[in-house]
Amino acid sequence: MDGKLREILMRIQTQQIDIDRGLEEIKKMHYYDMEYAVLDTHRQQRKGFPEVIFCQGKTTEQVVAIAQQLVAASERNVLGTRATYECYQALIEHIPVAEYNEMAKTIVIRKGEQNQLGNILVVSAGTADIPVAEEAAVTAEVMGNKVVRMYDVGVAGLHRLLSQTDKLLEARVVIVVAGMDGALPSVVGGLIAKPVIAVPTSIGYGASFGGIAALLSMLNSCSSGIGVVNIDNGFGAGYLASLINQAT
Amino acid sequence: MDGKLREILMRIQTQQIDIDRGLEEIKKMHYYDMEYAVLDTHRQQRKGFPEVIFCQGKTTEQVVAIAQQLVAASERNVLGTRATYECYQALIEHIPVAEYNEMAKTIVIRKGEQNQLGNILVVSAGTADIPVAEEAAVTAEVMGNKVVRMYDVGVAGLHRLLSQTDKLLEARVVIVVAGMDGALPSVVGGLIAKPVIAVPTSIGYGASFGGIAALLSMLNSCSSGIGVVNIDNGFGAGYLASLINQAT
Amino acid sequence: MDGKLREILMRIQTQQIDIDRGLEEIKKMHYYDMEYAVLDTHRQQRKGFPEVIFCQGKTTEQVVAIAQQLVAASERNVLGTRATYECYQALIEHIPVAEYNEMAKTIVIRKGEQNQLGNILVVSAGTADIPVAEEAAVTAEVMGNKVVRMYDVGVAGLHRLLSQTDKLLEARVVIVVAGMDGALPSVVGGLIAKPVIAVPTSIGYGASFGGIAALLSMLNSCSSGIGVVNIDNGFGAGYLASLINQAT
Amino acid sequence: MDGKLREILMRIQTQQIDIDRGLEEIKKMHYYDMEYAVLDTHRQQRKGFPEVIFCQGKTTEQVVAIAQQLVAASERNVLGTRATYECYQALIEHIPVAEYNEMAKTIVIRKGEQNQLGNILVVSAGTADIPVAEEAAVTAEVMGNKVVRMYDVGVAGLHRLLSQTDKLLEARVVIVVAGMDGALPSVVGGLIAKPVIAVPTSIGYGASFGGIAALLSMLNSCSSGIGVVNIDNGFGAGYLASLINQAT
Amino acid sequence: MDGKLREILMRIQTQQIDIDRGLEEIKKMHYYDMEYAVLDTHRQQRKGFPEVIFCQGKTTEQVVAIAQQLVAASERNVLGTRATYECYQALIEHIPVAEYNEMAKTIVIRKGEQNQLGNILVVSAGTADIPVAEEAAVTAEVMGNKVVRMYDVGVAGLHRLLSQTDKLLEARVVIVVAGMDGALPSVVGGLIAKPVIAVPTSIGYGASFGGIAALLSMLNSCSSGIGVVNIDNGFGAGYLASLINQAT
Amino acid sequence: MDGKLREILMRIQTQQIDIDRGLEEIKKMHYYDMEYAVLDTHRQQRKGFPEVIFCQGKTTEQVVAIAQQLVAASERNVLGTRATYECYQALIEHIPVAEYNEMAKTIVIRKGEQNQLGNILVVSAGTADIPVAEEAAVTAEVMGNKVVRMYDVGVAGLHRLLSQTDKLLEARVVIVVAGMDGALPSVVGGLIAKPVIAVPTSIGYGASFGGIAALLSMLNSCSSGIGVVNIDNGFGAGYLASLINQAT
Amino acid sequence: MDGKLREILMRIQTQQIDIDRGLEEIKKMHYYDMEYAVLDTHRQQRKGFPEVIFCQGKTTEQVVAIAQQLVAASERNVLGTRATYECYQALIEHIPVAEYNEMAKTIVIRKGEQNQLGNILVVSAGTADIPVAEEAAVTAEVMGNKVVRMYDVGVAGLHRLLSQTDKLLEARVVIVVAGMDGALPSVVGGLIAKPVIAVPTSIGYGASFGGIAALLSMLNSCSSGIGVVNIDNGFGAGYLASLINQAT
Amino acid sequence: MDGKLREILMRIQTQQIDIDRGLEEIKKMHYYDMEYAVLDTHRQQRKGFPEVIFCQGKTTEQVVAIAQQLVAASERNVLGTRATYECYQALIEHIPVAEYNEMAKTIVIRKGEQNQLGNILVVSAGTADIPVAEEAAVTAEVMGNKVVRMYDVGVAGLHRLLSQTDKLLEARVVIVVAGMDGALPSVVGGLIAKPVIAVPTSIGYGASFGGIAALLSMLNSCSSGIGVVNIDNGFGAGYLASLINQAT
Repeated sequence: MDGKLREILMRIQTQQIDIDRGLEEIKKMHYYDMEYAVLDTHRQQRKGFPEVIFCQGKTTEQVVAIAQQLVAASERNVLGTRATYECYQALIEHIPVAEYNEMAKTIVIRKGEQNQLGNILVVSAGTADIPVAEEAAVTAEVMGNKVVRMYDVGVAGLHRLLSQTDKLLEARVVIVVAGMDGALPSVVGGLIAKPVIAVPTSIGYGASFGGIAALLSMLNSCSSGIGVVNIDNGFGAGYLASLINQAT
Repeated sequence: MDGKLREILMRIQTQQIDIDRGLEEIKKMHYYDMEYAVLDTHRQQRKGFPEVIFCQGKTTEQVVAIAQQLVAASERNVLGTRATYECYQALIEHIPVAEYNEMAKTIVIRKGEQNQLGNILVVSAGTADIPVAEEAAVTAEVMGNKVVRMYDVGVAGLHRLLSQTDKLLEARVVIVVAGMDGALPSVVGGLIAKPVIAVPTSIGYGASFGGIAALLSMLNSCSSGIGVVNIDNGFGAGYLASLINQAT
Repeated sequence: MDGKLREILMRIQTQQIDIDRGLEEIKKMHYYDMEYAVLDTHRQQRKGFPEVIFCQGKTTEQVVAIAQQLVAASERNVLGTRATYECYQALIEHIPVAEYNEMAKTIVIRKGEQNQLGNILVVSAGTADIPVAEEAAVTAEVMGNKVVRMYDVGVAGLHRLLSQTDKLLEARVVIVVAGMDGALPSVVGGLIAKPVIAVPTSIGYGASFGGIAALLSMLNSCSSGIGVVNIDNGFGAGYLASLINQAT
Repeated sequence: MDGKLREILMRIQTQQIDIDRGLEEIKKMHYYDMEYAVLDTHRQQRKGFPEVIFCQGKTTEQVVAIAQQLVAASERNVLGTRATYECYQALIEHIPVAEYNEMAKTIVIRKGEQNQLGNILVVSAGTADIPVAEEAAVTAEVMGNKVVRMYDVGVAGLHRLLSQTDKLLEARVVIVVAGMDGALPSVVGGLIAKPVIAVPTSIGYGASFGGIAALLSMLNSCSSGIGVVNIDNGFGAGYLASLINQAT
Repeated sequence: MDGKLREILMRIQTQQIDIDRGLEEIKKMHYYDMEYAVLDTHRQQRKGFPEVIFCQGKTTEQVVAIAQQLVAASERNVLGTRATYECYQALIEHIPVAEYNEMAKTIVIRKGEQNQLGNILVVSAGTADIPVAEEAAVTAEVMGNKVVRMYDVGVAGLHRLLSQTDKLLEARVVIVVAGMDGALPSVVGGLIAKPVIAVPTSIGYGASFGGIAALLSMLNSCSSGIGVVNIDNGFGAGYLASLINQAT
Repeated sequence: MDGKLREILMRIQTQQIDIDRGLEEIKKMHYYDMEYAVLDTHRQQRKGFPEVIFCQGKTTEQVVAIAQQLVAASERNVLGTRATYECYQALIEHIPVAEYNEMAKTIVIRKGEQNQLGNILVVSAGTADIPVAEEAAVTAEVMGNKVVRMYDVGVAGLHRLLSQTDKLLEARVVIVVAGMDGALPSVVGGLIAKPVIAVPTSIGYGASFGGIAALLSMLNSCSSGIGVVNIDNGFGAGYLASLINQAT
Repeated sequence: MDGKLREILMRIQTQQIDIDRGLEEIKKMHYYDMEYAVLDTHRQQRKGFPEVIFCQGKTTEQVVAIAQQLVAASERNVLGTRATYECYQALIEHIPVAEYNEMAKTIVIRKGEQNQLGNILVVSAGTADIPVAEEAAVTAEVMGNKVVRMYDVGVAGLHRLLSQTDKLLEARVVIVVAGMDGALPSVVGGLIAKPVIAVPTSIGYGASFGGIAALLSMLNSCSSGIGVVNIDNGFGAGYLASLINQAT
Repeated sequence: MDGKLREILMRIQTQQIDIDRGLEEIKKMHYYDMEYAVLDTHRQQRKGFPEVIFCQGKTTEQVVAIAQQLVAASERNVLGTRATYECYQALIEHIPVAEYNEMAKTIVIRKGEQNQLGNILVVSAGTADIPVAEEAAVTAEVMGNKVVRMYDVGVAGLHRLLSQTDKLLEARVVIVVAGMDGALPSVVGGLIAKPVIAVPTSIGYGASFGGIAALLSMLNSCSSGIGVVNIDNGFGAGYLASLINQAT
């Protein structure tokens, strides 16, 4: 974009075009400045950012095609979320280096070595919450963060959490994944002075209303320092944790 | 009721009336058996049961009149809930022995000594939850239970609760009062093997929706052994705790 | 845990380690006191507590593996809830003594004789509510309680309930299971002075909203002495009833 | 309307106007047939129908003005609902025969003798529900029905209802008014084979959500033969009961 | 029941038992009066009442078994609602006279001639609402009412309704079935002075929320004289309409 | 209708019938005026109006039958919405000229040349929203409008929208289709001074609640000039846009 | 903005600055193109656009100050919505030409003659809906549209609407304002082929939930061609109607 | 705590007490380890943490008393949120150095110089959102962060935001405060690669439902990297932003 504007200015300077014509041509470049700024903004930390495919609702063919295109076009890692094993099976025929995490339902295609910055702790309340926690963990890892896991430490058995406070202390940001009563982020937030990202899950039945109970509990946490993402949004939590961990 | 039926039977036995007439008279007593059973059911533990006035929405005159009527008609304690201080002021002019609990907004008129059975522990998460907790405590006390209080021990500062586990261990039933995220009953329920009565409060703002967040959190507790009552229903919790404590 | 702390103290007493070293070792035992207290708390009534597997959402292989592990590791009964018949079929090949309750969808593996304490009455409004009622009944039985059933006595035909008040009078705690309008707990709570545990079910359609109508009805009961559990949570009701029945 | 059409036809018959002109004139009378039908429909039972003013949200001046206009223009009774006493005070200066029902918050201006047809029973669960019940009762009375009241017979004390089944049996249609758990219509509907109109009230707090709990309970009644009106809509219930009672 | 009481009284009269013994025996008959009253209440109009099976959620075997039992035990018609064609196929092998209405998904087994009383009009807004409308119509017919149908007359094409006002005028009670905006009952209620039973259906998508939009619209109708039943509850509407039509 | 009335008037004029008879015949034509008006109203812009079949929930046989009937009876285009490919396959055997749009799930049967009036711009936020956007676009095209598409320009990458403002400026009405946060219509509405029709879609998960989040966002837009249609209602948006574009 | 860019280009042309410096200066003007486009977009129909003050929640002093500023700075009309009479009283001391509409709660300060384009019809269901309808009407008038009013024509008395179809036919766009059941837009939309803007109002009580019932009804309208705005958003409806009416 | 344990160990080492006695004394110190860990955790960044008083719902006397107590007991700043001006007036009589921010409704009592770390940008959509934004800004400032404000840049006028992208680029974490459609965080999140904390406000009316619309919009943002706090929770956002900004 820069080049094009410079060229117009040069044509003005050298009298090839008059000012009215120059003005008109610049107007045609509508918004180029805006785009420039946006690209510039993103460029800084772009290295760790994955290309992301939300596989759910796409056909296997579509996922494979998009993945191939991204792999060819970009130097960044490619991350596929909510991918079935069938989808992965089809993909590795074309991209053999693709990895599958069955718990997280993620596909990762790595494009080189990755830094392992900071320390993001991913905590889950129950075993049923692990798929969402793993989606968060994989996302953060792909974005170049060191990730530590602490699973199945829900408040119904508090000693499981309390016996691992060292992990809490060492983390720079903590992701807490919980369904049902969504009480765990409040407990974790009360123990440490680090940013906590709370992820409600749809685990539960009856009056859990597909995760609303956990979501509301987290939004109303009596502990300070907690930000909440959408129900089951492990990807969003991992992404936000990475931004926090790498914020400069 | 018993007397009336006996009388009819005696009149049959002594031929004062024939069987058709007897049958008819008994039918007129429709449902007397049912009533008898109901009364009989209640009689067992009736001593500790208060006469209750829900003052909210009643005029001061109405409360005073009902209280006077109950005091005259019954040997049981009289309990007024959700009473204003103004209401109490008017009442003591007529019933000087009435007591007022400003936190609980309760009026109590005692009709003699009360046993102090069992051990009901009333726990509150925040100071703002204390009015509801006190309503529960006063209700349980008036019904003849020993009540222990443990206030302001919410999960945002877990050590406040954990440093008093002896009180948790000594209770026979625990009432846990919490607003906002409603996480405290899950933590308490995970620590002890006693019945827990969870009382959501309307404390909070925004997405607490007047107590819905706490209510849902409690209904979806990951700890077992928790029964939930209506939002702000301290009276109901104290009443249920008394039934549990005195169940035989 | 006790043993380990004693050992450290002995090594200090016998000068094998100095105080700084002892202090450090004790710190490594972080929270052991807390755990001790928790275990101690539970120990009292632990005998009747089952090991519980929530089978829904687990594969048959997972359920079998967990059950085998629990049977090997614990002296307590093992209870599986929300188990399919297929799951049970696979299980009895490995654990022939396992029992299946088709209504309750429960698997029970008994580890010896069980006391039959107290008297827990399980009441259901309609026949469609029986699976939830049975889950409650089986849970309470496995935990060592005597259970009496009274099914299909909804308020649309009140005489069915009223003709069995003797059962209501003999119970120490009553579980009332109802869907649709959820009116039965209010009626039962009005007849007796015992703790009532209300279980809303998802039975109904349209504006029952999967059990919300029954849930709200129960939370707003005009009868006192009612605690509510989550929609379809028969297990939770049976567990709470056992805690109440065995509270000491 | 009939007259006007006849006149046009006569002018055609007598050649005063040609057919095109007649056609045009009839078209100007657009919808007259429709209006005719509507009026005709209503005429049958119109005598008992009151002119109704919904006073809430109107100024006292507006209510007085509308009432004067209706009294002058119609031979029917005038009914004002949700009227304050202040409003009534202002009204009787202009219309001294106006009557006020403080419970129902209704103003009635009678225009002659009223039949007392059928038998509409109005049942209320609690004393707090009586204002809504009275609005229903007054509405039905003004529309020419005989109304019987049975108040404060909620399901928390079932014997109060059961001891008055004769009243239930004698009614042709029953209005049941209840807040909180809204359980009473189900019980009444289970006892009798008459049309039941259920009126949820906003009485309650917390999870009653301003009457939603009672409303849902009534819509999901396990008894058949129940129609539900809006929360606190005593007028609507009385109106519908009158239509049912007088249906021919 | 009557017989048993008479027998006790005779044994008292003839000194076979003393009064205490008689009293005790009567107490054992707890609630018999209540039952008597209930049965008596129902007896009046019982003839037209069907025995009803809610087939949804029952196995074909269960439906067949219940139907056979009802046919054997009662002189009343048998009505099965929400029945699949497969279920019907299995049933007619055992009960060849059973009839199936594919639209209404109802099974009817007639036990003799039926009166055709009154005139119940069933109106539906769209063709997709017809199954619910048919369930209402069949229910009313089985209960001995004359039923007239007027389908597909929604407010999007108002002339379809207005061209049939004669049917509206001739009805004694009108059932109006509508999904989506639920506007039709308001329009019908504004045209006639007859009881209207509004049935919201789950027809619609998006913000219809499975019938909530229609339900709320009907509860808030600006026309008077409308009672609402649960979403898709055609049976309930037909039942209530029959009670209204046959009320005496 | 006009013809029939004229004929009656002529029979009166020529004394074939007397006035009473004429009056009676006209009454039988109840509402004809109303219908006339309605038809007249519609006639103006009727040409572009398609005959519409909402295929969802109808069998393939029903769709084919209705389509054949409409094609035979009307000169207008026929539009089928929410049609499966299977349905289309069956249809073209009978109506070979039928066209299928796989994205929009629409079937179109054209009855001649169509004008291409105005300029309706259809904007979609994400690729997953395109099916709804296409339904809108096809509907508008079938109704005789020129349609321009601008897809996948959601606010997460604002430059995609801003680089195409010329399209926004050239449109006469803009349809904006978005799921998830539903933020796009606010942004578009802030950029232009044209009517914006916002279509929330059910795309999203968790707290999107099937499109409620997007719907509420659009109803509360901080930009003026936005009208909202039901969730996923592409047809409704295309229809409204056409009415706006062709309004005279 | 244009001027500034031209100046930079001239300085390049005349060698006062070199190209790098020019490039830098243009970058400082970030987004000027975007702004230009936006302004250009709006300019077309800008004449009729009012400057708008949402008075609710602002102090009288704030409203007066903003109004004075707008009057001084702009040639457009100034519109204040949701203004109290007190606010108006304070305003006319400073701006005597200000006009107040008590029904609409609007303040208008006119800056010259206004065209009266097109024909916008504003329809209201009940008298209580008139304030919202008036807000719409005043907004449309201030924006230079001819507005026709048709009030109190709700569906409970359909003939009131049907007798004025000529007004419906003459309008170019119709705003329909209704609370309670929100049924009127469906009826109007079924009668005419013009764009309909539906405005739900908060009029109603109980299950109207502050306008939700009407809102949902309108979103689910069975008539096509209806766009919905927020509850009570008369301003938004008037604004959108003006955009539609003046769209070119 | 450390001291006490060391003392016990020394008494064991020096044989002043035996091991059993030592064991017992340590058990009495229940949970001391836990508390130690918690304190240790917090100590790191404790300096910037304010002592916080949530003034809403407390009497002026209570606020003054708590503030005096905190000032005396702690070296940290004291922050009062949701404080009225009256409350502040009373406070400065006792603590003259207290400062009041009328927009934020905050009271701050500083205890010395504060670092100005990092760069937290607080963005608000509308002027009505500023009070919440200011609460966030003041909280972050009191915790030792440099705060930059960018107010009134809602998406209805996108150029206001786009012309200040430099501020977006310079921030380390961005707080975005918005009511109504809650669209701004999605736009900001799409422009930058920094953590975004979204704060929904209760600004709006009708279907904004007190901030639910904005809340849901933010939870469903199509941009990644956004954490959401409770409605109107400016304090929580400022607190979380500080944790992120100072995370090490």
